Amino acid sequence: MTYDELNIGDSATFEKTITETDVYGFAGIIGDFNPAHVNARKMAGTKFGQRIAHGMLSGSLFSTIFGTKLPGEGSIYLSQSLNFLAPVFFGDTILATVTVKEKLEKGRVKFECTAAKEDGTVVVSGEAVLLPPRE
Amino acid sequence: MTYDELNIGDSATFEKTITETDVYGFAGIIGDFNPAHVNARKMAGTKFGQRIAHGMLSGSLFSTIFGTKLPGEGSIYLSQSLNFLAPVFFGDTILATVTVKEKLEKGRVKFECTAAKEDGTVVVSGEAVLLPPRE
Repeated sequence: MTYDELNIGDSATFEKTITETDVYGFAGIIGDFNPAHVNARKMAGTKFGQRIAHGMLSGSLFSTIFGTKLPGEGSIYLSQSLNFLAPVFFGDTILATVTVKEKLEKGRVKFECTAAKEDGTVVVSGEAVLLPPRE
Repeated sequence: MTYDELNIGDSATFEKTITETDVYGFAGIIGDFNPAHVNARKMAGTKFGQRIAHGMLSGSLFSTIFGTKLPGEGSIYLSQSLNFLAPVFFGDTILATVTVKEKLEKGRVKFECTAAKEDGTVVVSGEAVLLPPRE
């Protein structure tokens, strides 16, 4: 969608169950083998009791919405802020939502971003600025 | 490293060549099959002339440093901001650097984050706040 077609409050979502396969693949790609993500024995002795997904993995689900749904193909991703609020465990289904918050100057659009578990617990919140396609 | 052990200016890096394998794996994990990342034919007709890596992939390299080097294992990732400044092409070698910028209250530490190509072009900049381990 173009800048003119976007309205405050427009929203889109992407939902996915985050699995061990995702986390191990993500660790291999970015090189983050922090035991928090890949060492079940060590994590059994922590308050989490188990391995947790990389915060950046859940945060990257916003990129998925921006690149494929809203504004979609042809958009330029300018910035993203992320607050990591709660751990994501293997098997959690995460619903990512982006909502048009403000139409800025120079064709840019600010989005509010939220990722939550099935029980509503928000795991990541933030804002993003995109330059939607001109046509 | 603990809060007390960290000093302003302390820095750590992680460098990696971003490949097609990385980008296709990343797309599969997060579900972002934006043609910008996976359609060489379509991208040949754009100003980029080729597929580009997901901005969040380069941005995730900071997580790697935080989780494995500085502050390292046991840290809690509280927030990350990312400015996407230039495209990363398949084959680009990206050097991610994080530097202690400010020691905040409540045991938190603010880091400056930069990811750059071999020629020095900064592709991602931002800030992060971490809670280093207590011991």
